[in-house]
Amino acid sequence: MQTLSDPDSRLSTARVLILGAGFAGLATAIRLGKERAKAQVTLVSRRNYHLFTPLLYQAATGLVDPDHIAQMVRPAARKYGFTLFEGEVSNVDIDAKTVQTSFGDLAYDYLVLAIGSETNDFGIRGVSEHAISLKTLPDAERIHSKIIDSLERALVISDQAKRKRLLAFVIIGGGATGVELAGSVRDFVKFLLNDYPGLAEDQFSVVLIELMQNLLPGLSRYLSEQTYRILSKRGIQIRLNSRVMEATDGGVLLSGGELIETGNIFWTAGTKSPKLVDNLDLEKERGRIKVDQFLRVREHPEIFAIGDLASISDLKTGEKVPWTAQSAVQEGDWVGIALSRVLSGRKIEPFVYQDKGYMLSLGRQVGVAEFRHFKTSGFFGWLLWRIIHIALITTTRSRLGVIFDWTFAYFYKRNAAHTEH
Amino acid sequence: MQTLSDPDSRLSTARVLILGAGFAGLATAIRLGKERAKAQVTLVSRRNYHLFTPLLYQAATGLVDPDHIAQMVRPAARKYGFTLFEGEVSNVDIDAKTVQTSFGDLAYDYLVLAIGSETNDFGIRGVSEHAISLKTLPDAERIHSKIIDSLERALVISDQAKRKRLLAFVIIGGGATGVELAGSVRDFVKFLLNDYPGLAEDQFSVVLIELMQNLLPGLSRYLSEQTYRILSKRGIQIRLNSRVMEATDGGVLLSGGELIETGNIFWTAGTKSPKLVDNLDLEKERGRIKVDQFLRVREHPEIFAIGDLASISDLKTGEKVPWTAQSAVQEGDWVGIALSRVLSGRKIEPFVYQDKGYMLSLGRQVGVAEFRHFKTSGFFGWLLWRIIHIALITTTRSRLGVIFDWTFAYFYKRNAAHTEH
Repeated sequence: MQTLSDPDSRLSTARVLILGAGFAGLATAIRLGKERAKAQVTLVSRRNYHLFTPLLYQAATGLVDPDHIAQMVRPAARKYGFTLFEGEVSNVDIDAKTVQTSFGDLAYDYLVLAIGSETNDFGIRGVSEHAISLKTLPDAERIHSKIIDSLERALVISDQAKRKRLLAFVIIGGGATGVELAGSVRDFVKFLLNDYPGLAEDQFSVVLIELMQNLLPGLSRYLSEQTYRILSKRGIQIRLNSRVMEATDGGVLLSGGELIETGNIFWTAGTKSPKLVDNLDLEKERGRIKVDQFLRVREHPEIFAIGDLASISDLKTGEKVPWTAQSAVQEGDWVGIALSRVLSGRKIEPFVYQDKGYMLSLGRQVGVAEFRHFKTSGFFGWLLWRIIHIALITTTRSRLGVIFDWTFAYFYKRNAAHTEH
Repeated sequence: MQTLSDPDSRLSTARVLILGAGFAGLATAIRLGKERAKAQVTLVSRRNYHLFTPLLYQAATGLVDPDHIAQMVRPAARKYGFTLFEGEVSNVDIDAKTVQTSFGDLAYDYLVLAIGSETNDFGIRGVSEHAISLKTLPDAERIHSKIIDSLERALVISDQAKRKRLLAFVIIGGGATGVELAGSVRDFVKFLLNDYPGLAEDQFSVVLIELMQNLLPGLSRYLSEQTYRILSKRGIQIRLNSRVMEATDGGVLLSGGELIETGNIFWTAGTKSPKLVDNLDLEKERGRIKVDQFLRVREHPEIFAIGDLASISDLKTGEKVPWTAQSAVQEGDWVGIALSRVLSGRKIEPFVYQDKGYMLSLGRQVGVAEFRHFKTSGFFGWLLWRIIHIALITTTRSRLGVIFDWTFAYFYKRNAAHTEH
């Protein structure tokens, strides 16, 4: 990587290095291209695809094809003129302005940290062994395979208690991912039972466990209450104020001593910064990198931190900007604009977060949505969710693929092939 | 499984047990349903899906979605009234007429052996470690991931020799699977290079190695010669009369001492009977179970053996019926009809194999086809291949999915997301 790490050869244009191809990093790279910034832009990502995480729970429940939510980044790289390298980042040398990767060192003039977050099991015993999280594409495929596997095994078991255990699906964490997964798992299993003669509906259960006193902590009361109402009505057992002490082969142990028997534990209860971020000698707030109103790291104005790994204060409310795909895109887009302005000697304005509202899909034909001047639940919330998510998908292949999957699943079937990857 | 293994409880209808949900086994089960045979039909399969193997090489090269060639069997089970159990078969007790599975024993009155074949590396050193075969869905995904991985790694390597090694793709075995895979790998990589700036076309190579003196041994001279001509013209290096001595980390060693340097070895050179078949005390021919003209095992008229694991003589020619999807479907269908006739006291005629011709797709818009009164190559052969394969797919989901994939790939892109499963 001699050419890339030699600063002298690139005097005319600044070297912008973006780490991560999630919503924040990809938005930065694309915006820099659109603005024709005076920069040589390089993006390093662990994978050569951008994962459309809002549909991850649907990949886990046979509603969309996993490959349809893995959006290839290379076509975007060609279109917007940035270089994509697939590789692991092992360290950032802030003083030397160099990033160490699995394929060599890369020097930068500006660095955009956007490598997201990882699953956090809070050190609770047994979670890493017995629970499946939902952060990556392989995670979604593991959950999908696990659900089918449990049904197949339930079919050939005669012990009723064991069968019931196999047909109990427990989701830990009542945040956005957890409630959407719970709603979709319920629909998926209920639909599947048609093809599993001998397994009755009253033998299966979906349990959603939340530590706090309401679902969707951090979101509005409307969203929380509507979600509770809708999920309860669909037969999902919601356990609030419930602390998980341990996950075992046999089930989930709650703090009161109660054991919820299950062979299927799905974990959506928390995220944390990746180790790389932990190791960086930068100011943090609860593990996330603290940035100023220009999304820059204090004392290192050449480093931007955005997305899940950044702690950003909302200029208007003073509260923390939520760690959502929506805000990650806004932050990445803003950094792209800001950098292109800086590089052409123009001034920049502080980042202002725009809360565009919130939507959740909670099962077949039922969702909930809240915008500034408008809120709705039920069928219309669900329809809105679908329309807006289709609009948010940026590649043609993924968009058409998801439309195909939804259309097919709506009129016909979800995918229940037991493909272990 | 008390109810299933107790013969006395099923006096009225015969218990037909089918092992394997490949082309042969599934065709048997469906035909028994269509004929409304007086039978209680149970199918045991390792996976709850039927793999449409003729498109496996396309899943390996991003042309179709892996999930689209995994056809769910449960909807067919419901429609045609058979019971599907997912599980492993460990042994067949021929005297006790019982099959031992991972979930218990199953008794039968009639047994249909249709568990197919496995990859055969002929004990050649290094093949199992360094080569990827193409028999299962995970195999196809491994090849797909390997191709992308090699391109990604080639992009960040400066050593030209290593880069060339990463961009050399070697397919061992010039049978039907090998030639189709070679043609598709060539198109896939050539297409991908557009999105990998810095990797040049003259750096990549596809090599096809065949032990015999011509491609497609066993098929007609027309197919063999046309295939050779087409693949050569597309830049694929074909090495005939070449014996592989060893597969290593560095490449493929031929008997003459030549080393073909490559980091990508794909193995399509042979199949063998599964261990379960080896262990059965039945008459075999070159490892395959010998059957009479009614596809029954000698001295055990209650056992049928069909598909890849059976050695069947063509009544008309005296030659062995080829081990193809086409013949497997014919055999399964025939057994379904024969059994339903036997069970209602009617006579059966011997199995007669109908050679319906042969087709190969060798790359974008080029194929070769040969039927009894008609043969063609080039664009028309390719188009015919596509139309007929769409017709052969039996489930709506897979059929629409493949049409979607082909349409999209034709006009736009193949899938090159580096999704490791």
